[in-house]
Parts: sequence; structure tokens; C-alpha cells
Amino acid sequence: MTGRILALSGGIGGAKLALGLAQVVPHADLTIAANPGDDFEHLGLTICPDLDTLTYTLSGLSDTERGWGRQGETWNFMAALGELGGDTWFNLGDRDLALHAERTRRLRAGETLSHVTAALCGRLGIGPSIVPATDQPVRTVVETPDGPLPFQHYFVRLRCEPRVTGFRFDGAAAARPSPALAEALADPGLAAVVICPSNPFISIDPILAIPGVAEALSAVKAPVVAVSPVVGGAAVKGPTAKMLAELGFEVSASAVARHYRSRIRLDGYLLDEADAGLAAELEAEGLTVAVAQTVMTDLETKAAVARALLKMIVI
Amino acid sequence: MTGRILALSGGIGGAKLALGLAQVVPHADLTIAANPGDDFEHLGLTICPDLDTLTYTLSGLSDTERGWGRQGETWNFMAALGELGGDTWFNLGDRDLALHAERTRRLRAGETLSHVTAALCGRLGIGPSIVPATDQPVRTVVETPDGPLPFQHYFVRLRCEPRVTGFRFDGAAAARPSPALAEALADPGLAAVVICPSNPFISIDPILAIPGVAEALSAVKAPVVAVSPVVGGAAVKGPTAKMLAELGFEVSASAVARHYRSRIRLDGYLLDEADAGLAAELEAEGLTVAVAQTVMTDLETKAAVARALLKMIVI
Repeated sequence: MTGRILALSGGIGGAKLALGLAQVVPHADLTIAANPGDDFEHLGLTICPDLDTLTYTLSGLSDTERGWGRQGETWNFMAALGELGGDTWFNLGDRDLALHAERTRRLRAGETLSHVTAALCGRLGIGPSIVPATDQPVRTVVETPDGPLPFQHYFVRLRCEPRVTGFRFDGAAAARPSPALAEALADPGLAAVVICPSNPFISIDPILAIPGVAEALSAVKAPVVAVSPVVGGAAVKGPTAKMLAELGFEVSASAVARHYRSRIRLDGYLLDEADAGLAAELEAEGLTVAVAQTVMTDLETKAAVARALLKMIVI
Repeated sequence: MTGRILALSGGIGGAKLALGLAQVVPHADLTIAANPGDDFEHLGLTICPDLDTLTYTLSGLSDTERGWGRQGETWNFMAALGELGGDTWFNLGDRDLALHAERTRRLRAGETLSHVTAALCGRLGIGPSIVPATDQPVRTVVETPDGPLPFQHYFVRLRCEPRVTGFRFDGAAAARPSPALAEALADPGLAAVVICPSNPFISIDPILAIPGVAEALSAVKAPVVAVSPVVGGAAVKGPTAKMLAELGFEVSASAVARHYRSRIRLDGYLLDEADAGLAAELEAEGLTVAVAQTVMTDLETKAAVARALLKMIVI
């Protein structure tokens, strides 16, 4: 197959598929747009966790054992910050800190997040285009019975413990798709849009909340396909299952597909083998469904999921 | 002896004497005002090298072998920053970085440098008061035949290589003595003002350039005494001798004393034994002169220099 692949991605799960896609798609044809909703300002730094997870994963710098951050990382900055009474609830490794510091310096000097990201990814020798979904700040706010919480306070500081009643994406109304995302969406050579197996509410919805993105996704001629982040009624990682339950959804791969279809046109859906039994009901709703082993544990399984996806696109 | 001791200090040499004073003066009676001229903004951080050298030295955290920064330091932030194409000419250790990040965060939140410094020194259990000489930015600019250079560019980036033709202290005209410096200068219990063996041009002159400081030093009843930073016609450390020569001064302990006396009232001067031969000419100029071994290599020699100074003050 030929043509551009545009992937929409959150952090860890999405980055796994992005790495799989990078094994089977020519790098020049692969654009990965990262969720802006996790981004935040902390210790004077602009931190973009999903963009960074993609960057570290595709540059081979990520710590695959710990699951986040950089391999060979040290934590002396945080230890010293704790001694000084500073905020230590969001852990930043010494090497990781350099990415935030350099990005923040360049943003303050007037560069766009797109420009900074391209430069940093270039320095790290990353082939595919990792791009922010937007250059404007879009910040997820988690609504709870005790009031709204900035995303990282909910996610890291409170370890996803509060019950979720909804989400808000502050800044989204004034945001625009980043130049690379807009260009990919308008590309006549676009072969597919891939929604990575990321959390639908906090990783994909913030991208869809950027004015024009959901409309463009419904207008593109290329198929829009998603990989379920729910396998066997549980999330592979993170709070997806907990959020589905708290928001009154069925905790299933089907519920995620239906959530997307309430927002955008979704043509194809890749289910895990554990959920093969859901294929019929989803096909009855008009989805093209494929089934594969979707839990990505190593480079080979990541590439296999990417191949299963691309196979579905060709059909 | 009783009463308050106010020390004016630059970085490494000054901090050695400050540590010596802390051995022999009750901590509640010792105030050390740090040179603001080396401070600068770098990588989005407000870095105050002299304040930090004093902080690390008096908290016991300094690396006495390397002579600057923290002991047990790691450099992974800088290594990663270099990989990303960031500015690496000013070396910042991973632990050291925490001090700059926390200070910068608190300054941005509206705290004064005095307030932040007091809080951080308190966290580190430092007894004497280390205070900035001013809460306003005063930045040394080094004038050279090729034009003016921001201090750290001259000092670190260009390793003091350019020839010096003069100095400017940007911001000084609008600066005020910090509350603690102003209070010490006005304290009826002030027993002495100590000018540490620091570079007269780039460590002490920026403090004297703060409106009101030189006037106050000439008005205080307490003696103003200095320790020569020049021993045997050479600087113990740093570019003092090179600057004296380039500015057309004699490279001697006497030249430093005369430079101070052109700006403020100086009552006493502590010469190194190597310069005992200069005592007569300086006494003939009206200075009280003492001679001691002033090269401070360990805690005992630091305390000994402090004792030699205090002895001069009592006389």
C-alpha cells in the first residue's frame, strides 16, 4: 500500500502502535499527531507528556521496562528539589528535564510548538513526523463530584482516584489544528487515519475538540480506523475502563467504538482476539471489523498490529 | 567581641572567608551580602552564582575538590541538553539545577530574591544570614575592545580571555539595597563590615554600585576591613590579577586597597604574609594593616583568617 498514514495518539499505548507503524510504513509517509490535553506548565516548564512519550519511543530512548521516561535515567534533580521544599509530585528525570527545558526556552523565544518539536525530533534522528495536534494550549480538565481538576493533578497527583463525571478541554475553542495535522488531513494522498489504542476521553477527544478536526475526519476520503484500547473488558493500561464505568458506559471495546462514532465517522475497528465475540454486533452497526492479537509487548507484536491495521485499510 | 558582622562577598574566595567567619562569629550575628553582578538568566532560569556558592559552602553541600557546585553532583541534564542542541556552555549539575528551578518558580510567583533566599537557606539549615545585596537585577557587563560582554559570557563562555577596558553594572541605578543589607548597614550594633577576598571589580564593585551602599559604608561607625584577594602579586583564584594589569593598575595587594579607598572608607586591611613588605606603605596612607596567612585551604585556615580579621577590628 502507498499513501500517507495519519495517526492520532495519546501516550504509552499510542506510542506502541506508532512504533509498530514505523516498522511497516515508509517514514516519510507517517505522521503522528499527539494529544495536547495532558500538556501542562510545571516548575516553569512546558511539559508535553504524550509528545515526549512518542519522541522517546520513536527515538529508541524510552525506558521500556518502567514504561515511561528515558532509559538510563537519574533522579537527582527531583531529590534535590525535595530537599529544598519544591513540588515533587510530578517526577522528572534529569535527562528528561533537558527536553522540557529546551522546549520551554524555544517556546519563550517565540517558536511554535510544531517548530520546536520538529527540531528536537530531528536532533534525535526520528524519521516519522511526530507533531502536536495543535500549537495552541488545549488542557484537559477532569470534572469530579468535588469540582474540576487539572489533568495532571487528577492523573499523577491523585492517581486517577476521584470519580470522573466529565471532561472539559480548556483552550480548545481558540485552538487550530497544527500546520502538519491540517496538511495531513487535507492531503489527497492520505491513505488512512489511525486512531491509536489510547484513552478515548483524555487522549483522543482533546484532539477531536480542536475546531475543524472532527469535521475533517468525517470529510476525508481515506478510511478512519481505530484500535481498541479495551481488551477483554479491561484497559490494557491506564484509567480507560474506570472512566467508561464512571461515565455510565459499558466497559467494552464496543463502547469505545460507539463513543468515537458519536463524534466522527469511524470506518474500521481492530479488536483483540479476546473480543472476537464483539465483531458481529459492531459489523451489524456498519463497522468493518478485524480481529488480531493487539497487546503489544515487543517490537514484533507492535509491527504485527500495524500490519493487521493496514490490511484492514486495503480492504 | 560582640555585635553584628556584615560581610560583602563574591563567590568562591568570599565563601571561604564566610565559612571561616561562621566558625568564630555567633550565627545570629553574621550577615553575608552576595554580589548580584554575576546573576543572569539562562535556560529560563534565574541563576545567582555567588549566592549559590555561599549557600552550598555554608550548608556543607559544596564540592570542595572541584571548587564550585555541589558534591555528589551528576551531569545528565547537560548531556541530554547537548544531544538536543541546547546551550551547554554554562554547566549546570542535576542537583544544582533544582536550586535554580525552585528559585525561578518562586520569583515568578512574585516573591523577592531576599525572601526566596531566606527560605531556601532555611531549608538547608544554614545559620548565618546569606542575603542578596539587592532584590533588583544588577548585571555586570564587561567592556572590551570588541564591545561589551554580559558577565557570564566573558567569564565562562570566553574564559576571561578578552582584554578588559572597564565595567558597567546594568540596573544598578534603579536598584536598592536588599532589606537585610539595609538593616545591617543601619544596625547600631554593627561591629564591622568585612570585604571578603573577592575580585574588587566584579564581586565587590557591583555591591558598591547599588545606590546608598557606598555612602552607608562611609557613614557607619563600625570599622570597614578587607582581606586582600591578591597574594604575592597574583590572585589566589580568578582574573583579579589579569584585570588589574589590563586596567593599568599595579598587580598588588596595595592596588586593591587603593581601589577600595577610591570608592569607600576603608579602615583596615589584612595582608598575606607574602605581602608583609607592603604594610609600611599602606600604613603610611592611613590604613590599619594586619598580616596573616590568608590562603584558606581547609576549615582551620578559614577560621584562622576570620580570627585575624576580628582581632584587627577589636584594635
